Amino acid sequence: MIYDLVILGAGPAGLAASVYAARKNLEFVTVAVTLGGRALQRVSIPDAPEHRATRADELVEAFRHELEYLHEHYRPTRALEVQRVPEEPRYTIQTADGGEPIHTRAVIVATGTRVRRLAVPGEEEYLGRGLGYSTISYSHLLSGRSVFIYGDGPQAARAALEAARHAGSVTLAMQRGAELEALELQDAAGRRYRDKLEQAGNLRIIYDCAVTAFEGDTHCRLAEIEHPEGGRERIEADACFLELRPEPNSEPVAGLAELDPHRYIVVDHRNRCSAPGMFAAGDVTAGAGAQSLVALGAGVSALLSAYEYVI
Amino acid sequence: MIYDLVILGAGPAGLAASVYAARKNLEFVTVAVTLGGRALQRVSIPDAPEHRATRADELVEAFRHELEYLHEHYRPTRALEVQRVPEEPRYTIQTADGGEPIHTRAVIVATGTRVRRLAVPGEEEYLGRGLGYSTISYSHLLSGRSVFIYGDGPQAARAALEAARHAGSVTLAMQRGAELEALELQDAAGRRYRDKLEQAGNLRIIYDCAVTAFEGDTHCRLAEIEHPEGGRERIEADACFLELRPEPNSEPVAGLAELDPHRYIVVDHRNRCSAPGMFAAGDVTAGAGAQSLVALGAGVSALLSAYEYVI
Repeated sequence: MIYDLVILGAGPAGLAASVYAARKNLEFVTVAVTLGGRALQRVSIPDAPEHRATRADELVEAFRHELEYLHEHYRPTRALEVQRVPEEPRYTIQTADGGEPIHTRAVIVATGTRVRRLAVPGEEEYLGRGLGYSTISYSHLLSGRSVFIYGDGPQAARAALEAARHAGSVTLAMQRGAELEALELQDAAGRRYRDKLEQAGNLRIIYDCAVTAFEGDTHCRLAEIEHPEGGRERIEADACFLELRPEPNSEPVAGLAELDPHRYIVVDHRNRCSAPGMFAAGDVTAGAGAQSLVALGAGVSALLSAYEYVI
Repeated sequence: MIYDLVILGAGPAGLAASVYAARKNLEFVTVAVTLGGRALQRVSIPDAPEHRATRADELVEAFRHELEYLHEHYRPTRALEVQRVPEEPRYTIQTADGGEPIHTRAVIVATGTRVRRLAVPGEEEYLGRGLGYSTISYSHLLSGRSVFIYGDGPQAARAALEAARHAGSVTLAMQRGAELEALELQDAAGRRYRDKLEQAGNLRIIYDCAVTAFEGDTHCRLAEIEHPEGGRERIEADACFLELRPEPNSEPVAGLAELDPHRYIVVDHRNRCSAPGMFAAGDVTAGAGAQSLVALGAGVSALLSAYEYVI
């Protein structure tokens, strides 16, 4: 059997693509280990009102239920490699469950990114309770609060600058070896950015450190860091965020679709990849912004492009 | 006063951009005659279950309420022209309410498209009740039904082909002068498309005609067309759709941003226009696909790009 479409991943982008594929009566299967992706990992911040971005999250949740209902379209495994059948507009997909390879005419890659874990005490314990990954999704809840951000690149700098617009105080701790010089803040725009960072009155930047632990009660309340010279410092915070450069899960299509220097998949404004019959959406694509609603929309956009390709 | 951002239009894309702009504490104003856009124009089809696309519509509705609550950020008028201030990264916007021009550093254009009205009896009366604009949003409800589509271009051909996958029978009536030859179905892919159209067993194509009336009871049940030689024909249908090429409302920025040959605004995958500080999202952009969820996501994407530009 040759599917019309295989969707890799079931975060917001993959779920939206799947639900719309079902509505369009496509012969499709969605290959993903879990349904929902990181969008359903919410962070609670002490004494903060309900996170208003949940409207998009509710849509993700609804789509997840819809795909659960369509279980014949769901294969709970991971794609290892996508291969293009020579001289045919067709792909073969090897999966991690050891089952038969999947044959399909079109592929939507929505495999997202994976976050790096620090493997320090408290990280596992507080994740979701005062400790999270996406500062910008919560910035509107940070008004007047103290915020700790640990990062290794421009994403952390951007998160800190945004948090500083809302929060009472922000500590940006940069990982060892990650200098602001290396933050891709070249050119005039980059310099202005850097100036803003250094001029923000409520933003302290600590270079060349390492987080050694998170501590707290019901919520994370404190990050312990180690300075370059070896001394430790305990920094209290109402909310802590890890803004480490994520790794895009683009490996299965690395030989087929054009990737950017950070190995994100390059797509056009209609979510088409450089390979015919291949589409991508969500965080695995360049410039996606890690927002559920953007990923949902991109998933539908990829599906519409794939549908047009298939019929 | 110089705003950070002005958002033109308040359909799904403009609403999503507005709500996220508010969360990010931007100094912004949304300029639009009405909130909600065409996304809230639902079509009921006789004896069909509730339209499942309403999950995205509910989000549009929620965002509309949110912007109503933020009424100081809403100016109920229409942008006439956006002008770039020479040698400054700044825009001036003239509005139709005769008020002071608006000054801003960045603009998101989300002005959508306008549909052409036929001005025939029954059109106004049945719009939303068995007569609608977006076939593909309803295709999953058309199973086994008879469908009438009137159009003038490739959009109508695509709609008919998709409807034919679901419906019992489809009549595609092409407007006078709109030949399938002119449907941009050039090249090999286009020819395959055309072959599919002509081979679909349940699809009848009538060329060179004009709709003269819609009739019905509680819902539209019949389209009357006039043939080239003058005879009239009454075609019964469970659902009727108008798939006339819409006009993008890109006039206010026509001199500033690159437009495609059909005058849609050209954007990159992060919703940036060719002019610095100008962004666009939703149906006014090339290839948007007239789907609420795509427009919502694109609105957020445009906002994230605008935010990065502004801060």
